[in-house]
Amino acid sequence: MVNKKILVDDALECLLMPSDPAHDSLYASMQYSLMAGGKRIRPCLFLVLLDILGVDSNLYINVACALECVHTYSLIHDDLPGMDNDDYRRGKLANHKKYGVGIATMAGDGLLTYAFELLACENNISFFKRIALIKILTAAAGPAGMVGGQAHDKGAEGKTLSLSELMFLDQCKTGKLICASLDMASEIAGLSKNDKEAIHTYGKHIGLLFQITDDLLDFNGVFQEMGKVPLQDISEHKCTYVTLLGKHQAQQRARKEAVAAVQSLGAFGEEFKPLRELPEMILCRRK
Amino acid sequence: MVNKKILVDDALECLLMPSDPAHDSLYASMQYSLMAGGKRIRPCLFLVLLDILGVDSNLYINVACALECVHTYSLIHDDLPGMDNDDYRRGKLANHKKYGVGIATMAGDGLLTYAFELLACENNISFFKRIALIKILTAAAGPAGMVGGQAHDKGAEGKTLSLSELMFLDQCKTGKLICASLDMASEIAGLSKNDKEAIHTYGKHIGLLFQITDDLLDFNGVFQEMGKVPLQDISEHKCTYVTLLGKHQAQQRARKEAVAAVQSLGAFGEEFKPLRELPEMILCRRK
Repeated sequence: MVNKKILVDDALECLLMPSDPAHDSLYASMQYSLMAGGKRIRPCLFLVLLDILGVDSNLYINVACALECVHTYSLIHDDLPGMDNDDYRRGKLANHKKYGVGIATMAGDGLLTYAFELLACENNISFFKRIALIKILTAAAGPAGMVGGQAHDKGAEGKTLSLSELMFLDQCKTGKLICASLDMASEIAGLSKNDKEAIHTYGKHIGLLFQITDDLLDFNGVFQEMGKVPLQDISEHKCTYVTLLGKHQAQQRARKEAVAAVQSLGAFGEEFKPLRELPEMILCRRK
Repeated sequence: MVNKKILVDDALECLLMPSDPAHDSLYASMQYSLMAGGKRIRPCLFLVLLDILGVDSNLYINVACALECVHTYSLIHDDLPGMDNDDYRRGKLANHKKYGVGIATMAGDGLLTYAFELLACENNISFFKRIALIKILTAAAGPAGMVGGQAHDKGAEGKTLSLSELMFLDQCKTGKLICASLDMASEIAGLSKNDKEAIHTYGKHIGLLFQITDDLLDFNGVFQEMGKVPLQDISEHKCTYVTLLGKHQAQQRARKEAVAAVQSLGAFGEEFKPLRELPEMILCRRK
């Protein structure tokens, strides 16, 4: 994973070049958030799975970058004053605190559009598969996926959700893009329907695990490690796994998702070791 | 054009169906702006050009809808408090005045993503051409296109631009999506490079003509006809063709663009009459 992160960081660094100086500040703002220390979970998952499946992942770095562009845009818009109103992200000023709300909104829009441009222009992939990848990404990121989850989250402020409602919200908001990262690798490798489904199920558990540990970090964390202000969910009366289940049960739930994630990979061989080890790493994360 | 507008309105009406009630308000907000009385210039241009080129435009209604989704998203985000802060659009409350800034931001994001989903899923078109259409649309709408123009516009507030800077801004902000509507029809019809270029040039003039008449309407218009508050550009010290050239010269400039648009179609036959008549209609528009 570490090696892949360096690859992705390097590729993202070289991506965005304004063709006219009039767009310099927009590109600077897109670049700022893209290079603000993301963990690169989604592109790394995508690249690691390609390697596991025997596909040369070096040919698909731009697809990995497209995933990170979509994730980064979602964070920029999520931090806006009209959404979560967060001043910090990954220990740095949120995009809108540095560039203003207008440019931050456009930076998100620019990154989202650019992600699809990257996929459409990826000459290493057949037209058929490029379309398949765009279908996966639009379905995962669009109004029935990530954007739907973000809007649901906004609408749920101050309300108490049931556990199944919260799980659906998080499945849309966080899970679908994580699943898409894996699904896109499965698609490129041409896996069977059954194998695709097993990996997709793994992704669903990883997505929930990620969100539960996020809620636990908000409850336990300190700014220096997290790069954002802790206890925000609590102070904003947000419904989280911690507010709903309590800290102890939320930890148990996280462990349950980690076990289920590993179980979904039961039919696969030794080469899936990196994916089998990941849940434990997420359980132990401090940021 | 009128018949096409009805077709587009009907198709847009049937598009957005939430798959889960948790996303109802997001979909309602997307639908609200999509059905808020748009003129459907871009989808109509696309469909009319297909007819002119002897292609059955009925097969491509979803592509037309994708263009309108992108245009509508750009208006929702442009009206936000962090951008133009407009309370009204087409005589109705702006999306964020009705649904709140957070949901309006997500509605724009949802429409943009959905537009690419529509294109990727359009089974009437070969994979090769679907990718070509997505390339055209991402380049036109992305950070080097429409989003770049919107960010440039935001950055130019309170500044005086030169005429060429203003034209570049408008070419990005308005022109490129209008050109894309025509380019996408040219691509589907498989036109020669020369014919594509002639039609693209027509689109550039139409885009500028549209923006200049927009500035003139802001200067001359009344709320009842425009559906938005007039004199906003002036009161916000925005640089427009009217503030830069004065009303009379701006009118002359608009006429010049109208003439140039018609001239770009010089090599084409009688069937291009609807496109030759359009510039005069834009010159006379009251909203």
